[in-house]
Amino acid sequence: MNKFLSHNGYFGKPIFNSLFYNDSFMNNRIKISQLLDKVTTGEEAAKLFKDKMIVGTSGFTKAGDSKVVLPALAERAKKEPLKITLISGASLGHDTDAKLTEAKVLHKRMPFQVDKTLRTAINKGEVLFTDQHLSETAELVHGGYIGDIDIAIIEVAAIEEDGSLIPTTSVGNSVSFAALAKQIILEVNISIPESIKGVHDIFLPENYPHRNYIPVIAPGVRVGRTTIPVDPEKIVAIVFTDIQDSPADIAVPDEKTIAISQHLTRFFEEEVKAGRLTDRLLPLQAGIGKVANAVLTGFKDSNFYDLTMYSEVLQDSTFELIDSGKLQFASASSITVSKECYQKVMDNLDTYREKILLRPQNLSNSPGIIRRLGVIAINTALEFDIYGNVNSTHVSGTHIMNGIGGSGDFARNSYLSVFVCQAASKSNRLSHVVPMVPHVDHNEHDVDILVTDQGYADLRGLAPRERAVTIIENCAHPDYKEALLDYFNRAGEVRGGQTPHILSEAFTWHIRYLETGSMKS
Amino acid sequence: MNKFLSHNGYFGKPIFNSLFYNDSFMNNRIKISQLLDKVTTGEEAAKLFKDKMIVGTSGFTKAGDSKVVLPALAERAKKEPLKITLISGASLGHDTDAKLTEAKVLHKRMPFQVDKTLRTAINKGEVLFTDQHLSETAELVHGGYIGDIDIAIIEVAAIEEDGSLIPTTSVGNSVSFAALAKQIILEVNISIPESIKGVHDIFLPENYPHRNYIPVIAPGVRVGRTTIPVDPEKIVAIVFTDIQDSPADIAVPDEKTIAISQHLTRFFEEEVKAGRLTDRLLPLQAGIGKVANAVLTGFKDSNFYDLTMYSEVLQDSTFELIDSGKLQFASASSITVSKECYQKVMDNLDTYREKILLRPQNLSNSPGIIRRLGVIAINTALEFDIYGNVNSTHVSGTHIMNGIGGSGDFARNSYLSVFVCQAASKSNRLSHVVPMVPHVDHNEHDVDILVTDQGYADLRGLAPRERAVTIIENCAHPDYKEALLDYFNRAGEVRGGQTPHILSEAFTWHIRYLETGSMKS
Repeated sequence: MNKFLSHNGYFGKPIFNSLFYNDSFMNNRIKISQLLDKVTTGEEAAKLFKDKMIVGTSGFTKAGDSKVVLPALAERAKKEPLKITLISGASLGHDTDAKLTEAKVLHKRMPFQVDKTLRTAINKGEVLFTDQHLSETAELVHGGYIGDIDIAIIEVAAIEEDGSLIPTTSVGNSVSFAALAKQIILEVNISIPESIKGVHDIFLPENYPHRNYIPVIAPGVRVGRTTIPVDPEKIVAIVFTDIQDSPADIAVPDEKTIAISQHLTRFFEEEVKAGRLTDRLLPLQAGIGKVANAVLTGFKDSNFYDLTMYSEVLQDSTFELIDSGKLQFASASSITVSKECYQKVMDNLDTYREKILLRPQNLSNSPGIIRRLGVIAINTALEFDIYGNVNSTHVSGTHIMNGIGGSGDFARNSYLSVFVCQAASKSNRLSHVVPMVPHVDHNEHDVDILVTDQGYADLRGLAPRERAVTIIENCAHPDYKEALLDYFNRAGEVRGGQTPHILSEAFTWHIRYLETGSMKS
Repeated sequence: MNKFLSHNGYFGKPIFNSLFYNDSFMNNRIKISQLLDKVTTGEEAAKLFKDKMIVGTSGFTKAGDSKVVLPALAERAKKEPLKITLISGASLGHDTDAKLTEAKVLHKRMPFQVDKTLRTAINKGEVLFTDQHLSETAELVHGGYIGDIDIAIIEVAAIEEDGSLIPTTSVGNSVSFAALAKQIILEVNISIPESIKGVHDIFLPENYPHRNYIPVIAPGVRVGRTTIPVDPEKIVAIVFTDIQDSPADIAVPDEKTIAISQHLTRFFEEEVKAGRLTDRLLPLQAGIGKVANAVLTGFKDSNFYDLTMYSEVLQDSTFELIDSGKLQFASASSITVSKECYQKVMDNLDTYREKILLRPQNLSNSPGIIRRLGVIAINTALEFDIYGNVNSTHVSGTHIMNGIGGSGDFARNSYLSVFVCQAASKSNRLSHVVPMVPHVDHNEHDVDILVTDQGYADLRGLAPRERAVTIIENCAHPDYKEALLDYFNRAGEVRGGQTPHILSEAFTWHIRYLETGSMKS
């Protein structure tokens, strides 16, 4: 067993054979000899961190994250307390955020998270969380808004002869971190075949903020190089691991999910009939989750063909659609799939390489590219109000769930902005269509289509008073329709206005739910 | 007097001499002879409209609007009632929206307005108003979301030999309307010198929604042609006018405006000191209004130089800065200036033509270009809350003032998003910093810097709890600081969360103001 190889057989067994149990894998993966003496253990690498440092890490929707150094840092901090600001691409896997939270390492975290332990700490005010549009983190970092990045941790498949990096299952903000960090720690993940080279499209708009255009005129048009350029002098440590990404939980679609998916498919079919879309639709973006996955899986048996994706994350459904011949090309910033799908993708990179590209998140979520390509954006709401304002982050208006992620980049700039949500939950004690949302992530200007298991509301071109009627009629759960309509009508009479509301009543439903466990009176 | 010339000497006297009082001006301005027989009166042109039509009109921030046909339509509707949906670039001048409202012509209006009479009708629910991001209207129209445009009304300086159109003081959505409308009515405005040709940069991304990139890599880079292409067969009527644009009201900056402007200038100076900006700053966008005007005017006596603008509208201050040599280039969709400035601009188009470009609003407000150029966006808020959510449209959360305009296009995609607002007004009975805004146009993710006459809050990279402390400390009026801090502290104790709020209290201040005329308890 090589002492420099961190692994834990996440999926039950180590995924490489005895051939690798010697130093040769190092020379295979580190093609620039001057860096060989940087190889060390996670424990040693973790000693490089100092209190108050700003750290950038790879990792986007649990893919391509730091699997050795950050956990080792959490271990170290148990004995030697220190605090850092941690900036990632998006969410991390392997409960790393939980470990860091428990070890009290996190002073501030950005731009996204999905971890239960971290979320609890954020909501208690113990960890500061800066919730950001995922396209903007690179802007803030390059603009010097957050301070200098002291250390970048980047998972790679290999280091090339010129010192440049082959990323793994995500790109995230790694290109910006590599360019800007004072020091770089690499995690070489030998569970990722080197044949992943060529899957990435690495483009860093030069000379921030004076930039040229990014010539992505279709999801499949490569605009950059295959590896991340880096100054080898900045690389201070290299660790090896064979730990795979945390697998995505693929939930079996339930009745409501299927209903939502069917309503949305019907909407698309009607758009095609009306001549506003063709059978090829337009590049699709789908947020993570069972609804998006169900909708995409539904396309397998549809009349749509030659589909494309311009999204943040490639999920199981993406590869199913590629395999079935329905999906022509998919661009994103990461691959986040189930264990089974992961193995299929890794085993068939030579085939998939022609069909997918992984890009920095400032490209996958670029406002200009999203507008240019006419992306159809499908994202999940926690709740929405009768005028179409969407809360996608804050439970009861105060407690963060995950974060806004890329939904704002896509919703505002897309051709069609769709939000999906169940009409009611918790035995219908909770309505997800409410008089007023207590936290607005996407306002009425950014929401075209709302879909619940009850139906869909087409809000395009509608004024707020028209939106209310359409939303209540098509999306609300029957138990709440009357009460919503009553609120809307009384608001129009009592106060009137472009967007009628009764401020003293606007949050009554939420308050009642907090007090009684039901929004029903 | 030529019967086909509509004029009213808006500024006291007709601005052309007797030389024009014969038909020769027609041949001068209509260079394609087949169209000469389309010349008619506004009254006749107004007869082309039918009930339920969708009408697109030129006009952006009161510039380059319809001055003959829409008022004639209002006159006609007094006797022969009809309703239309009216889509403009942005606001119209000459009380046209008021005339149309009084004549009950408007079923629906979009995407922006600033008219008192229309606003009142909207807030009563008598006219539907679809409030849109200004970059998106062309998207919706090209996408077929709103229905076919039956008639386009476009003010032009002249019609070229190939039938293409030279716009006047704005471009707005005219390029899209000309491309898509079934019929086109032109208003040839002979008060605009033909030397305006060359001021416009007409670019229509082809083949919606499958588009190429728009290669604007600096405000002054021309990417399109100088005239709007149009099928002459679609031109059904041409009217002539010499009525000038409604002049902008230039308010003398008051004490608070000057304070806001000074705080903002100080912020820019500190950014330069910190190395995040240079003395040339970055392309500026400034919303309409006295604060923006005061800030820009303030640059005249500053150390900043070689400035550029990438904005929606060129105001008096723009031309003052050009004249003083401080402003190198300005791009926008319209020129909206005082009477004095207007004359100066018209008399010196040969000079200004090298320094300005007017573009379609889907270019001036293009998300991709705004991000690419690193625009500094300065917009006005009605109020904002302790977490940095901005209400820029709805008084008391219900009654529309103007509309979101382009502020959303700029705020979300800019390099620096600044919102300005007075701290308190109405003898301090109204605080513009509140516990929670009852309408969100720009959420915390889209707001970097808040400026009031009390100071500025730099919110970049801050978590909500940090934002609250900074905002209250730096921006709130002293009369309200303690109460805001008290709310924030209690919300943290009572509920906690990423964004602490007490829902039952969140709108107490607004309710109290509605009931007692003061937010103070």
